[in-house]
Formats: sequence, structure tokens, C-alpha cells
Amino acid sequence: MDTEADLQNPLVSVADLRDAWPVLDVEGRVEGFRHLTSADAEEFFLELQALDRAQLVTGLPTAEQRWWLRALPPDDLADVLQETPEEERERLIALLDDATRREIKILLAYSEDEAGGLMNPRYARLRPEMTVDEAIGYLRRQTRERVESIYYAYVLDKESRLLGVVSFRQLMMARGDALVLDVMAKDLVTVLDEMDQEAVGRLFAQYDLLAIPVVDGQGRMQGVVTADDIVDVVREEATEDIQKIGGTAALDAPYLQVGFWEMFKKRAGWLVILFVSGTLTVSAIKFYQGTLDQVKLLAFFMPLIISSGGNCGSQASTLVIRAMALGELRLRDWWRVFLREIAAGLALGGMLGGLGLSIVIAWHFISGDPENIELHSHFILLGTVIGVSVVGVATWGTMVGALLPFALKRMGLDPASASAPLVATLSDVTGLVIYFSVAILLLRGTLLP
Amino acid sequence: MDTEADLQNPLVSVADLRDAWPVLDVEGRVEGFRHLTSADAEEFFLELQALDRAQLVTGLPTAEQRWWLRALPPDDLADVLQETPEEERERLIALLDDATRREIKILLAYSEDEAGGLMNPRYARLRPEMTVDEAIGYLRRQTRERVESIYYAYVLDKESRLLGVVSFRQLMMARGDALVLDVMAKDLVTVLDEMDQEAVGRLFAQYDLLAIPVVDGQGRMQGVVTADDIVDVVREEATEDIQKIGGTAALDAPYLQVGFWEMFKKRAGWLVILFVSGTLTVSAIKFYQGTLDQVKLLAFFMPLIISSGGNCGSQASTLVIRAMALGELRLRDWWRVFLREIAAGLALGGMLGGLGLSIVIAWHFISGDPENIELHSHFILLGTVIGVSVVGVATWGTMVGALLPFALKRMGLDPASASAPLVATLSDVTGLVIYFSVAILLLRGTLLP
Repeated sequence: MDTEADLQNPLVSVADLRDAWPVLDVEGRVEGFRHLTSADAEEFFLELQALDRAQLVTGLPTAEQRWWLRALPPDDLADVLQETPEEERERLIALLDDATRREIKILLAYSEDEAGGLMNPRYARLRPEMTVDEAIGYLRRQTRERVESIYYAYVLDKESRLLGVVSFRQLMMARGDALVLDVMAKDLVTVLDEMDQEAVGRLFAQYDLLAIPVVDGQGRMQGVVTADDIVDVVREEATEDIQKIGGTAALDAPYLQVGFWEMFKKRAGWLVILFVSGTLTVSAIKFYQGTLDQVKLLAFFMPLIISSGGNCGSQASTLVIRAMALGELRLRDWWRVFLREIAAGLALGGMLGGLGLSIVIAWHFISGDPENIELHSHFILLGTVIGVSVVGVATWGTMVGALLPFALKRMGLDPASASAPLVATLSDVTGLVIYFSVAILLLRGTLLP
Repeated sequence: MDTEADLQNPLVSVADLRDAWPVLDVEGRVEGFRHLTSADAEEFFLELQALDRAQLVTGLPTAEQRWWLRALPPDDLADVLQETPEEERERLIALLDDATRREIKILLAYSEDEAGGLMNPRYARLRPEMTVDEAIGYLRRQTRERVESIYYAYVLDKESRLLGVVSFRQLMMARGDALVLDVMAKDLVTVLDEMDQEAVGRLFAQYDLLAIPVVDGQGRMQGVVTADDIVDVVREEATEDIQKIGGTAALDAPYLQVGFWEMFKKRAGWLVILFVSGTLTVSAIKFYQGTLDQVKLLAFFMPLIISSGGNCGSQASTLVIRAMALGELRLRDWWRVFLREIAAGLALGGMLGGLGLSIVIAWHFISGDPENIELHSHFILLGTVIGVSVVGVATWGTMVGALLPFALKRMGLDPASASAPLVATLSDVTGLVIYFSVAILLLRGTLLP
């Protein structure tokens, strides 16, 4: 394509534009893009993600819009349209040719995150009763543009039900008069059109495949999902989970491209929930005000003790969230996780508790603070309070972290919402209760009445 | 393969074994595997990950070991050998045929996480001066087993330097007397054999490719990396990052398959570091003991205030860690992140601070605790201390979270080590200092002398 712009001022290189991209606004991007040579523009456009493509196309004149939309295979095109504002979308769809428009409407009917929304509806199809020579001749006649998935041909019956698959290589190697039926592989991994993309990703990882055919509930072939699309899916799903684990809503766009207030909104929600839940720590401490007045030293250790619960909880929750996402843990495994984690919590808590006791004892001998009578007259007792509390708090934090993802999943929510900050906040409140209860129990008769 | 076992007792189904797998020990797995029919065993073996395959093969008799090792393409075989204990590895390598052994030695010379360790050294090669007909004939003669990458043929010169690529489909569509040189695509995405697998993954995601050829420093073709392997890489890298973000060392194996003490070791390291760093909070509070004695109410809000710093920090660090892993942020972008995050921190802190002030004021009017003179006579002042501290702590926590990944990367460490618990612990200590400093400043002359 030779636009006027690139003939007048073909000064921008792909490398320059790629570098400047994250800091340019939409107008600047369109401007820069239109100053690429046509070959560079094509290279650059095909590198972009759907969101960027959508913004770019929206900013171009109609003639160029049509050109760029047609440069994309239907699955990528559907992604771009999904990122386009509703009112623009219909106008862009009207620019497509009839066949593509039909394909796109089918794809857009699926949600973005299911197999049907991910598949390419163009694929090479054969009939089982063809000979290999007929099949090769037939495939050669199919125009290049209509078929993206160039590695396999799928064998369908008259009702479009999927019978088998044959690679181009297998066709080339087979005898010309053999039947497709006898050459094709019949033992296929397929996915349902409504399968969630995360599950599709797990199948690709499990079977190390380059392409999986998509069928509907009646076994009729709908399209093909290829491994290159799954690379993107796996990255996106992990990004979402990581952002949720950090206590943010999923950004759904690259970090530098999220506007300030958009970013604010994605982060503010959980922060408010956590802050309000955090006020329970104020009530907990207030409840134990009397104990705190009598043994002031207890205040010193509050943050240390409750944060050890939060740390153990973050570990447990992230391990469980990830194992669930990878399909290693199912809902019914909660009992095994519970047993494993209670043991882990006790062991880790025991270690930290021992460390806490040792630190208090060491502090007694090192500390140059002789007026601190509480510490020096009862240092073993105080060390024991710290140690025992840490065991309790760490075990409890581990439990909360390990089981919260199961509870969320059971309620139909995303297990990744069991973020490190949420687990820490939940274990802070109970941590304080555990700490003061242990103190009251162990210090009664000595430092407490 | 018909082993004696599966003729005697072919009772185990693939589905059963798949279900029981996570709870079986190594002996049980070998036992179960040997009771599959040979077709099932092959299906099952090809589903397994490298670690499982290594354990299984190690437990089989030598004749079967040889069989199963030969069932794998060289890149997968190298992965299995890498998971095998050193002393076993040499013995297993000795079971291979000469050609495979040579390939494997080359692959094992690369680290597991670089392109060379990931590639398949078997690929179809052509010479540029061949005609299309000659090329097709030549490819047909190459035995099926030697070539896994069945979609592209790579065109090399006499020194094995990569000149271009042609798909089987393009060959089939081209005129028989055309030269390969004229049919092949010359504009190739390639990777260096030493490139880190995370960077290779980014290239696959950027260009949506199914295969990328690997070349050495002299441009000589070494092998092919395919998208199905990259799906695994992207999952593994994300798993590592998520586990590190949660404050654990990377597990390197499925959650349920990590033994108790192994799991303990992976988690204990960071917990000890965090606990010991956490004792700085004890020193900080001790330092402000006098202030705390005079205004006891300050103790109530300690956990709430410092955790708001940790929460803001977790958000910032996970966003930055992920953006770095996706290649959206480079080291030199730290300044832009700094500016964005200081603004975000102030805005989020301002929101939380306002919330804190409102909560203290509300508490004054609702609280049925008239003896609490500190609160009721100076509630606006106290609310201001809370509000201002939260602004400071949240902004500081956000800064720590946003910049720590850059600092770690600058030092050559993994940015993902800026875990949520580490950021929380670091911002706890400074959070206390900010809180008490604000209190001393604002309460001087009223609640403080």
C-alpha cells in the first residue's frame, strides 16, 4: 500500500516508532505509523497487539482502515474488533467482504476467553473418500488467503463432523492412490467451542501440540486454535493472576499504556477494602488495651508477630493459586492441601518461633537498657510468649493462605483474588487475637494479675 | 512394545493412572505404568513432563529404558536427561544410538533455559540451488524419524548458514522448476543459541510464530524452537515469578510432588530473612517508647498504618515485576515508573488518608467509650496524624515496591525477588518511623510535651 503520507515523508523507521510507541498518544501513533514505508508499516502492524491495532485503525481514514482490516486473519481481526468501541465496531465490520463478515460474526458471538473466540475459522478440509492425489490437487486449488492453518488438513464427513487429521507432510509422503481415510490420524485431541482458554492452554501444555481443532457440541468442526495464540493466552492469564496476587484488578493493557485514573481505579478498590478490614486490627488492640497497659513491651512485638502470619500466608496462597491455575490442584484436593499446609505451617512456625525466642533471649543479654524491668526480669517468659504466638500465628496464616483460594473457587470466584495483601490483612486481625491470648495465658500471675 | 507385565495384568487404564499419579510414590508409578497396555503406555508417557519421565525411566529395566528414551525427540530427551541424577545420566546416554548421542551432547552443553537447550536439532534442510521438484524429492527421502519440525524446510549454504525458509505448503504450491532460492522467504526472525528462554518467549508472543530457527554467533543454523515448547516455557517462567512474588523460592516441580522437607527449605529461607528484618520494627517501636507511653492510642493504629504501606507496595512491585517480564519495562524506564508511581502513591495515599481521618472522626461520635480522653478531646488532631501518616506511608510503600525490582535487576538479581512480603517488611519499618515522626510533629504542645 502506498499512502500519500509515506511518499511525502518516509522518514520514520520501524525501530524508531517501536521505541517511541509507549510514550506516544493515539494521534502521535497514527501520525508515526503513516510515515512508515508501506513494507515497514505492514511489518509493524503485524507485530502489534490487538488493543494497539484497534486504536491505530480507528484513527486512520476509511480507505486505509479497510486495507489493514483485510491484512489480518479472522481470529486476529475479531480480537481487534473486540477492542474497538461499540459504535465504531459496526462501521468497521461493514468494510469487510461478505465471507469475512460472516466468519467474524460467528467469532464475535463467542466470548474472548473461550476456544471459539480464539480459533481461526479458516482451515483446510478434506473428505475421507478422496485419494491422496485428489486431496493434494484439491488443497492446491484452495486460495492461499482462505487458509491460515497450513500444516494440517482436517477430514470432515458431510455433516462437518471431524473424522481425522492429516499433515501436509503425511500427504506428501503417502502413495497417491491411497485413501485419505487410511492416511489420516483418527485419535485426535479436540476442544469444545465453549471451553475456557485457560483449559485450552493446559491441553496445549500437556500434549505439546501445534494446533487443536475446535468442535461444537455435535462434534462439528468450527475452527483451529494454534499454539502461537496459546502463547499469548498463557502470558495474559499469568499476567492477570500476578496482578491479582499483588492486590490489583487485572490491568488488561500494558503498564505504561494504562492512564493515570484508570490505574488509580484498578488499585483503589482493593486498597479501600483492605484498609477498612484493617481497622479490625484497631478494634482488636483496643480490646486488649488493659493487657497492653500492664505489659507495655507487648506493643513492641505486634508488627513482627502479625507480619510473620502474613508472610506464611502469602507463600501458601500463591503456591495454591498457581497450582490451581496449572491444573495441578482441583477443588476436591482441598483436604490434601489442608493436611500438607497444616504440617508446613507448624514446621515453619516452629522454626520462626524458635528464632523469636532466641532473639528475645539474646536481646536480654546484649541490650544496654537496664531500666527495662519487664524484659530483664522475665525474659524467658516473654520469649516464650513471642515464640508460642509466632507458631500459632504462622500456622494460622498458612491455613488462611492455603484454604482461601479453595473457598473463593468454591464460590465461583477467582482463586487469584486471595492476594498477598488480603491474606496478610486477614491474618493480621486473628494474629493479634492469638498473640494477646497467648500473652494473657502465659503471663498470668507474673507480669499480669 | 509388549512387556511381560502388560500381557499378564493389563488392568490399569490411562485415566486411572493419571488420577492416582500425584499421590503415588516412584515405585507405585513405575508399577502402574508397567500395567498399562503398550498403546496406553505410549500415550501416557508422551503426556508426562520431563521430571516425571526421568523418574519413571530411572525405575525401569534397561531394555525398557532404551525403548522409552528412543521414543522421545532429542529436545525432550535432553530435558529428561537434565532431570536425571548425574550418575544415572551417563548410563542412560550410553543406551542411545551414535547419532542421537551426538545431538544430545550438543543440547546438554546448553543451559536448560537458553534457546540452545530448548531447540530441536532435527529439521528439514534444503540447498538454495535445488529446484522445487528436487527439494520435494529430497525431503521425501529424509526418514520420518529424523525430522520433527514438519512444517518448514530451512535453506542453508555450504557453511550451514541460514539463508531462508520455505513451508511445505509453499513448496507444494510452487512451480516444479522454480528454484528454492526464489520461493523461500528471506526475511526471517531468528534467535541466537545463547538467548534466554524468557526472551525467546517474548519473540514468539510478539510475532505470533509457530517455529523460530536457532543460529550460533556465526549465523550457522543449530536447530528449531517450536511454539509448543514455548507454551511450556511461558508457563514455567510465570510459575517461578508467581512463587517468588509470594516469597517462596521457585519450586521447580508440581506442588503436590514436592516432598515435605524440600517444600520446607524452599519456604524457610525467605521467612527467616523476613523475620530477622522484621525485628527492626521492634527496635523502631522501642525507639519511640516515650511517645507511645504518652499517647497510648498511637499503638492502636500501628498495624493499620504500616499495612497500608505494604499493600500499596505489593501492588506496585507486582505490576512492575510483570511489566518487566513481559518486556514492557526496561531498566532505563525506571525514571518514568518513578514519576508515575509517586503520583499514584500520593493519590492512593490521599484517598486512604482521607478514609483514615473519616474513620477516626466517625469513631469519636459513635464510640461508647467516654473515658478515652485522648480520643475524644483531640479527635481531629489524632485523625490528622492518622491521615497524614497514611499518605506518607502509602507513598513510601509504593516507591519501595516500584523501585526495588529495578534495583534488583540493576544488581543482576531477579526482579521477582521483590516479593509482596519483602516489600511489606521493608515498608513496615519505615512506616513506623514515618508514623511516629508525624505524631511527634503534630501532637507537640497538645498530647505531647
